[in-house]
Amino acid sequence: MKLKAKSLDISTGGTLVVIINKKDAERMDIHPMDRLLLCKGKSCSETVLADITSNSQYIPPGTIGCMEEVTKSLEMRAGTKLSIAPTSKPLSLEFIRNKLDGDKLKKKEIEQIVSDIVANKLNDIELTYFVSACYSNSMSSDETTYLTKAMANHGDILKMNAYPIMDKHCVGGVAGNRTTMLVVPIVASAGLTIPKTSSRSITSPAGTADTMEALTNVCVPLKDMKRIVSKIKGCIVWGGALNLAPADDKIIRVEKPLGIDAKSQLLASIMAKKLSVSSTHLLIDIPVGKGAKVESMRYAKKLQSDFQSLSKKIGIKAKVIITDGSQPIGNGIGPLLEARDVLWILQNDYRAPLDLRDKSVMMAGYMLEMGGKAKPGHGQRMAFRILESGMAYQKFIEIIKEQGGKETDPDELLLAEKVYEVMSRKSGTIHHIDNRNISKIARIAGAPQDDKAGIYLHKHVGDHVKRGEVLFTIYAHNRNKLQFAIDAWDRIGGFVVN
Amino acid sequence: MKLKAKSLDISTGGTLVVIINKKDAERMDIHPMDRLLLCKGKSCSETVLADITSNSQYIPPGTIGCMEEVTKSLEMRAGTKLSIAPTSKPLSLEFIRNKLDGDKLKKKEIEQIVSDIVANKLNDIELTYFVSACYSNSMSSDETTYLTKAMANHGDILKMNAYPIMDKHCVGGVAGNRTTMLVVPIVASAGLTIPKTSSRSITSPAGTADTMEALTNVCVPLKDMKRIVSKIKGCIVWGGALNLAPADDKIIRVEKPLGIDAKSQLLASIMAKKLSVSSTHLLIDIPVGKGAKVESMRYAKKLQSDFQSLSKKIGIKAKVIITDGSQPIGNGIGPLLEARDVLWILQNDYRAPLDLRDKSVMMAGYMLEMGGKAKPGHGQRMAFRILESGMAYQKFIEIIKEQGGKETDPDELLLAEKVYEVMSRKSGTIHHIDNRNISKIARIAGAPQDDKAGIYLHKHVGDHVKRGEVLFTIYAHNRNKLQFAIDAWDRIGGFVVN
Repeated sequence: MKLKAKSLDISTGGTLVVIINKKDAERMDIHPMDRLLLCKGKSCSETVLADITSNSQYIPPGTIGCMEEVTKSLEMRAGTKLSIAPTSKPLSLEFIRNKLDGDKLKKKEIEQIVSDIVANKLNDIELTYFVSACYSNSMSSDETTYLTKAMANHGDILKMNAYPIMDKHCVGGVAGNRTTMLVVPIVASAGLTIPKTSSRSITSPAGTADTMEALTNVCVPLKDMKRIVSKIKGCIVWGGALNLAPADDKIIRVEKPLGIDAKSQLLASIMAKKLSVSSTHLLIDIPVGKGAKVESMRYAKKLQSDFQSLSKKIGIKAKVIITDGSQPIGNGIGPLLEARDVLWILQNDYRAPLDLRDKSVMMAGYMLEMGGKAKPGHGQRMAFRILESGMAYQKFIEIIKEQGGKETDPDELLLAEKVYEVMSRKSGTIHHIDNRNISKIARIAGAPQDDKAGIYLHKHVGDHVKRGEVLFTIYAHNRNKLQFAIDAWDRIGGFVVN
Repeated sequence: MKLKAKSLDISTGGTLVVIINKKDAERMDIHPMDRLLLCKGKSCSETVLADITSNSQYIPPGTIGCMEEVTKSLEMRAGTKLSIAPTSKPLSLEFIRNKLDGDKLKKKEIEQIVSDIVANKLNDIELTYFVSACYSNSMSSDETTYLTKAMANHGDILKMNAYPIMDKHCVGGVAGNRTTMLVVPIVASAGLTIPKTSSRSITSPAGTADTMEALTNVCVPLKDMKRIVSKIKGCIVWGGALNLAPADDKIIRVEKPLGIDAKSQLLASIMAKKLSVSSTHLLIDIPVGKGAKVESMRYAKKLQSDFQSLSKKIGIKAKVIITDGSQPIGNGIGPLLEARDVLWILQNDYRAPLDLRDKSVMMAGYMLEMGGKAKPGHGQRMAFRILESGMAYQKFIEIIKEQGGKETDPDELLLAEKVYEVMSRKSGTIHHIDNRNISKIARIAGAPQDDKAGIYLHKHVGDHVKRGEVLFTIYAHNRNKLQFAIDAWDRIGGFVVN
């Protein structure tokens, strides 16, 4: 049957969906969510999903409404004649069903599922069954390995002519904590290759990619990334601009509504991205503490051992450290505020937050040892010397310039104009600063969309504070947002002073 | 923030969804699938889900695209100013999450989930997690009871001034098998109240509602249904036109892609509809056999005991019978063909299919005994007398007329014009007729959308057949469909002759 295309200019966010009129659907015995093969002359699309409308003004009989993704995939325009034919369900549905029934999946089956996810062949419901099945019937370590490899292989791969290739990862949940922007220049200064991809914030006030973007371009094509790293050993780019392990984002999308974090998928998701950049040596940081992503030491230890065994199976040498995640690290929270901290540390400025500096030096130290540049026990001292000497700063500026930016004076970074200083209501010692609440306030103030907004902490846990002394400053783009952030602080708090 | 409404004329199939421009979303820190409260002046909508587009031609900043469901719920027109505010996630997400983690759900939690499902507050992903959680971590009998009652209570309820109120249900999967249209008139003739709701076909060549619709109107509002049943004791209407246990359809929708049939949900779904019409006595038929929905006797027995215990818990007196489901019952398959069989039986015509007649008489007999109209062991004889006397036919015509139709001569029912007679390729005895394959061929021929299309069986299991003798006739609306059906028969078959 031939239908006239109508472009709908709506995006589904991935899945290929067409809408046809109820009358045409009945004529062809097509039901909502049935699969169709869509052909323009002899060129046929990937399988698309059918949606059915009885609104004949919108989609008259004889026409077929195409979502943005379909229009793009078939390179068509309004009026193009398309023929449609029912086609079978993707193979992977049967495997997902089996997993839901508690079966272990084979390598080929997981590969088929990942391939169908990447090709947008599964709709939200089907993908959710997969995530749910893996959550309810935990994946074995073999299954996790297959999933990791399949996710990496169904995407682009960065191949460098170098060994070792260093990488780091932080499980997250700690505000500030911008170690990557310090570790990469230190490690690259020492001559190690570190093609670092980072993520943007999803629920935090800034991801490394957001903070780095305050200083330079982070959307770097794979080809340029390879050129830059070949030349200067390191880079810090946004992983989302690359097509690395693309199944991951699609899986995360359906995990979000329920805040599901199937451990096997968390592991696979992280490690697949490491395989995608051909990492050989990896340092993983698991911050633990109240208000962080991982709150219990027991879970942290389990995660540590899972990371270690998965790394071994996929051939990456990993060191997994558990660090203090009970409070924000560094003073700035929000893209520009964090970038300023990083620059102050690299410039050995007196305003540098020492907690962030010391943690980064410790981590860089481990990496220098893993990469064979320092003897065991000597990495940290070497890292510190590289930082103190200004070499790390020079490397950082090289990275910034190669990615398309220019050197910036941290004191010239203009923060958001509306400012409010939050004062302590009593005197005492600060016992806790809640990552979750502080992040929330910074986000409400505008971070990371307003890159100049956020929070600057004047105090950390253990500090003494007098009544009326400033705990932190809120920066916002306008009065409304500032007031919302102040209201949020009044409501949820975030500092425990005793 | 105020935005100008733009009506999108697209239906999501239930969920309330709005689309806003990326720029507005960033300004308000709104993410895809976030929940918003949408207000027109002082009247606020149910919670809606946010979708975000970067296409400023389609949804310019300052406007908000509203899916059909939203437009209806707010009774607005293009240009209406709407204010939006982020709002919290539905309570039930936490309970779904707990169920996914293996917890047992409490009564109140299940009620909240069902209430949110009915109010379209859960998106496909969230609803899928619920179904998946109940599938992976089977519901206890208490949970199933709560679910059943909650599903019934969150919908309309038919209240009759009568006792007992009879009902029947068939688990399905057998082609033909139109017992309801015979049982209802027999039982109602005996003076028992039977307000029967039936379903349309989803994957079969006809549901009872489709077949009944070949003879009369089946979309009867609850008020009229009550009036009709008060007057003539029985009716046969389409349940889908009523708002009975509406959560059920929404759950079935997400079960479909994977063909999931969480047993607890199957049970709850069926029994909730019985509670909705205030049934007190219920006969459940579980046909078992190769090609039917239930293929193993072991599963049938389990289902039987589950039905019995759930019925007891919700206060319905149920009798559950297991019957032969190994081949189609009756000769006609497809709305008109089945309606003709029913009329022939009611008119005691020589062409009446005896298998369908005898099964219906047996079932009606049980119901006469359950309802106290016949002594144990005497129901079947009484049912047969009611049928043979023509009383059942008269009652059926009453029902047809009350629902808005008129008496039809079965010989004047015009079948589809394109006809093909499928002949046996060898002589022998028929050992098996596959329900699934025969249903498929009938659907491809056009049933139930083409109500005159389908299959007429000339032979049943156990019959002898000669080479070249007609096994069945295919009726289709046009040559194409006829050919597709013939091709399907050539490919998949459906008769085993030895």
